[in-house]
Amino acid sequence: DSSLKVFTLNSNPVLAKEIADQIGIELGKCSVTSFSDGEIQINIEESIRGCDVYVVQSTSAPVNQHMMELLIMIDALKRASAKSINIVMPYYGYARQDRKARAREPITAKLVADLLQTAGASRVISLDLHAPQIQGFFNIPVDQLVGVPILADYWGSKGLEDIVVVSPDHGGVTRARQLADRLKAPIAIIDKRRPRPNVAEVMNIVGNIEGKTAILIDDIIDTAGTITLGANALIENGATEVYACCTHPVLSGPAIQRINDSKIKELVVTNSIALKDEKRIDKVTELSVAPLISEAIIRVHELQSVSILFD
Amino acid sequence: DSSLKVFTLNSNPVLAKEIADQIGIELGKCSVTSFSDGEIQINIEESIRGCDVYVVQSTSAPVNQHMMELLIMIDALKRASAKSINIVMPYYGYARQDRKARAREPITAKLVADLLQTAGASRVISLDLHAPQIQGFFNIPVDQLVGVPILADYWGSKGLEDIVVVSPDHGGVTRARQLADRLKAPIAIIDKRRPRPNVAEVMNIVGNIEGKTAILIDDIIDTAGTITLGANALIENGATEVYACCTHPVLSGPAIQRINDSKIKELVVTNSIALKDEKRIDKVTELSVAPLISEAIIRVHELQSVSILFD
Ligand SMILES: Nc1ncnc2c1ncn2[C@@H]1O[C@H](COP(=O)(O)O)[C@@H](O)[C@H]1O
Ligand SMILES: Nc1ncnc2c1ncn2[C@@H]1O[C@H](COP(=O)(O)O)[C@@H](O)[C@H]1O
Repeated sequence: DSSLKVFTLNSNPVLAKEIADQIGIELGKCSVTSFSDGEIQINIEESIRGCDVYVVQSTSAPVNQHMMELLIMIDALKRASAKSINIVMPYYGYARQDRKARAREPITAKLVADLLQTAGASRVISLDLHAPQIQGFFNIPVDQLVGVPILADYWGSKGLEDIVVVSPDHGGVTRARQLADRLKAPIAIIDKRRPRPNVAEVMNIVGNIEGKTAILIDDIIDTAGTITLGANALIENGATEVYACCTHPVLSGPAIQRINDSKIKELVVTNSIALKDEKRIDKVTELSVAPLISEAIIRVHELQSVSILFD
Repeated sequence: DSSLKVFTLNSNPVLAKEIADQIGIELGKCSVTSFSDGEIQINIEESIRGCDVYVVQSTSAPVNQHMMELLIMIDALKRASAKSINIVMPYYGYARQDRKARAREPITAKLVADLLQTAGASRVISLDLHAPQIQGFFNIPVDQLVGVPILADYWGSKGLEDIVVVSPDHGGVTRARQLADRLKAPIAIIDKRRPRPNVAEVMNIVGNIEGKTAILIDDIIDTAGTITLGANALIENGATEVYACCTHPVLSGPAIQRINDSKIKELVVTNSIALKDEKRIDKVTELSVAPLISEAIIRVHELQSVSILFD
């Protein structure tokens, strides 16, 4: 049985520590700093020869810094003879650049896949990829974990009554359906339409929300425009209370201000992206994905170890 | 004959404009901005189908941002059916991470080569690579331009007398020799040695500098520790005046302060790295590599166009 090591880079050290704790090991010793000119300097401070290494790094903001840290770490691990290099990337940055929506656009989500493989990644473990097609961008195994059960457990334990799960747009209906099934609740959809060009969008609500407690769900909340406008539309249309949740709290730009100013009573997120202090406001509840990820690592590691028997 | 386009990213737009002017074309239309969360957004605003495209980008600070801009641009150009994607990278970031100096170090200069090729680069044009071995990290053609002639022309036109060209360390003697040949001057070397561990380094000067005008030369000046200590040692040992020059003015951290406080009369650099305003001090003279690079592009393009005849 080859040994399992977990390393963290700079995006998510608290989550990585929790994961290591739950597996029952220490985090691998490693320093990830910058030279005076901003170039990344990585020193792995223990042998990893022949080990199955798991590197915890979300490519959240600063995304380009975190991406290069990850690529350089993979290079160092490869040259230090790791047996396998498994990337634990709870949040996959650039996932929204997953197709050519216009002429001459890059497909950066595919580029990221190619870069990780070129550097030497053996496997990727991620959570709620923005588009499931991203798995197909890789020629190595990609384990996609799902955040809905964690969110559902939280809402279930809260004892809310007469719930309706709402998708903030028609692209997110499947996700809303999954949460609704676990909460044994109906769904509704906010169907934005622009009646004529240069006329404001109309928020049309499909489904019954009157007198109900609405729970909005999305995969990513970035500037929070969609979710806060949606919440306010739900209240205007007769919902009694509005809650919201997502897996990946990007929360950039005006997001926190908008959430504070909105009708959302509570926003529940996971720690796939580490929240900066200024984003830890009263309305935001953070759930940990460490149990989910540590279980996945243990299962993958058993698999890799067993496979040795057949090598 | 397929058409030649020059695009710039964000590291070096002034140089890119100069290059396009000297070739006699407009810069390609393209916007390189960031989404609210910091992810890079690139829009190429003209057709480049079947064109030989040259992208001007030094991977200077912020190096990771500039690196990802370049990779994403290459991806976009590839998907937009460019005939060839030629990377004009006057300064090659991470060039000093070119070998494993210690156990478990990355070789980031090689990783960068792999990433550029994976993204889709056809060719690289660079200037004074920190180590010539970096050419061998690529499986595509790498044209290495040389900055010494530009520096030599400047010093030659300045009319200094009784010159000695000085290398600040034994690693740079070949470069000093090249400059000295062009100036018909002798060379000297600053030979740092630490007599015993934990004892300050001794600056031993090999060669005759007494009563002479010294010109220090290096490829990269980063924090400027080596060059300013060297300059002061030269004066202490009898040089009448000290000048300095380099191709790549990284000038990070304390560099500008150190240069200002030093005995260096004038520091001559190239625009391989765009100088930020706060680095444009009186002592610093900037020479343009645009003529050198535009000539190289024209030569490479002729080659690529001619090759069509044989395809
Ligand atoms: N980081 C980002 N922030 C905002 N929009 C993005 C980002 N990355 C990609 N996009 C755009 O989001 C759209 C895809 O989002 P979606 O339709 O939700 O998959 C595309 O039009 C992209 O150009
Ligand atoms: N960005 C950087 N700033 C300072 N030192 C660096 C940088 N990148 C690499 N190095 C170190 O510089 C040394 C190589 O420099 P050299 O001997 O001049 O080729 C190695 O020990 C590297 O660890």
